[in-house]
Amino acid sequence: MPRYRLTVEYHGGAFNGWQRQEEGRPSVQAALEEAATALNGGVMPVIHGAGRTDAGVHASGQVAHLDLDRVIEGGNLRDAMNFRLHHVPVVVLEAAPVRDTFHARFSAKARHYCYRILNRRGPAALDLGRVWHISRPLDVEAMQRGADVLCGHHDFTSFRATECQSRSPEKTLERLEVRRQGEDVLVYASARSFLHNQVRIMVGTLRQVGDGRWTPDDVARALAARRRAAAGPTAPPDGLVLTGVDYDDWGD
Amino acid sequence: MPRYRLTVEYHGGAFNGWQRQEEGRPSVQAALEEAATALNGGVMPVIHGAGRTDAGVHASGQVAHLDLDRVIEGGNLRDAMNFRLHHVPVVVLEAAPVRDTFHARFSAKARHYCYRILNRRGPAALDLGRVWHISRPLDVEAMQRGADVLCGHHDFTSFRATECQSRSPEKTLERLEVRRQGEDVLVYASARSFLHNQVRIMVGTLRQVGDGRWTPDDVARALAARRRAAAGPTAPPDGLVLTGVDYDDWGD
Repeated sequence: MPRYRLTVEYHGGAFNGWQRQEEGRPSVQAALEEAATALNGGVMPVIHGAGRTDAGVHASGQVAHLDLDRVIEGGNLRDAMNFRLHHVPVVVLEAAPVRDTFHARFSAKARHYCYRILNRRGPAALDLGRVWHISRPLDVEAMQRGADVLCGHHDFTSFRATECQSRSPEKTLERLEVRRQGEDVLVYASARSFLHNQVRIMVGTLRQVGDGRWTPDDVARALAARRRAAAGPTAPPDGLVLTGVDYDDWGD
Repeated sequence: MPRYRLTVEYHGGAFNGWQRQEEGRPSVQAALEEAATALNGGVMPVIHGAGRTDAGVHASGQVAHLDLDRVIEGGNLRDAMNFRLHHVPVVVLEAAPVRDTFHARFSAKARHYCYRILNRRGPAALDLGRVWHISRPLDVEAMQRGADVLCGHHDFTSFRATECQSRSPEKTLERLEVRRQGEDVLVYASARSFLHNQVRIMVGTLRQVGDGRWTPDDVARALAARRRAAAGPTAPPDGLVLTGVDYDDWGD
């Protein structure tokens, strides 16, 4: 069974997240699996994603893999899947054969997210569903000082959803950078892996710092508390995009 | 009757264009007029826009004006209108009093548009409805040579919709610039005013040059022909954004 890697873009607003759901609830995984079925002799393949994004969370660089019962050229696989995906906002940007030890989820060395806050008085019209609108001006420098507290290896219990199923709450946050770009405040987060809702809780917490309700020291106290209730609220999914996944090599 | 100027952003996909339509068809103008009614003693004011954008065309910097029966602070007008617009993708970015000789349409000195082509193999997922997807690689340098032919003062009969109602087909195109930005090809167009569909027909024509079907000389021949059929097809509305309107002064 030859294995293929896919790079995938999707608009999260149309789905109940990446993972296949009970009957009738749309997921990115199910859309891709259905689109690949005709290329696999009518048998639906399982597609594994690097990041199991939540409902409403977008991707511009999700990576996934699947095994097919036949050899097919990467460009043809991409085009054939996109042809079958034309009715949903999911697109295969790239498809290529990989060695069969490649695993989109377990081989991943880093995941990159970008969270976009629209920081202006008027709400979003053009980018509705793509941003978190915050009308009060945010202090980006203070947010960065709060972000610096979270970088590195920590117990992130305060920054994971109570239903998070990771065995360990310890993670190494490689990058948490806050930048203003016009009316946007962008938060870039990179780590080998994240806890459930970790990026959104970190952003919701940094927002408290950005509008002056919290100091960077409050972020340190929230981290040390190791209780979900000690951190800020979970930012909405709309602003979050999985922008890329790194591997040691592409396995091809 | 004090006069106010509005700067407006909207997602064109939700509307049958800027102009008020017959009963039941949504328009940006009608949405704004309805939102302003409660601020005008229950009488619906008329709102004049600088650019009467077509169905599906977006704006990030449309300018409009209206007269109200009372004096209201600009920020309060903006917020009150946005409160009433929360169910539609239209937002007032700025509102300010202006002198009563200011007219959003007739006082405009320049209108600026940006057309966005997504030029990659896979169609749009995240930006569906916001771009024109063209999978064949476009030659941006050739497109710019074609654009240079159109700049300046010309009879643009070939580049206006057959139903265009402008008295004269002569316009002065101040800027027509084609740039690649990652997977996007952006076409910037500026003029005091444009004919109906002019930007979309110019983009549809430059696309012919970009994929090698036409030469820049063919663009010159199309311009000289003064027949709509001599130019390329009309590009879809999705990629077009009215980004700004200039005035000699803001009239305030």
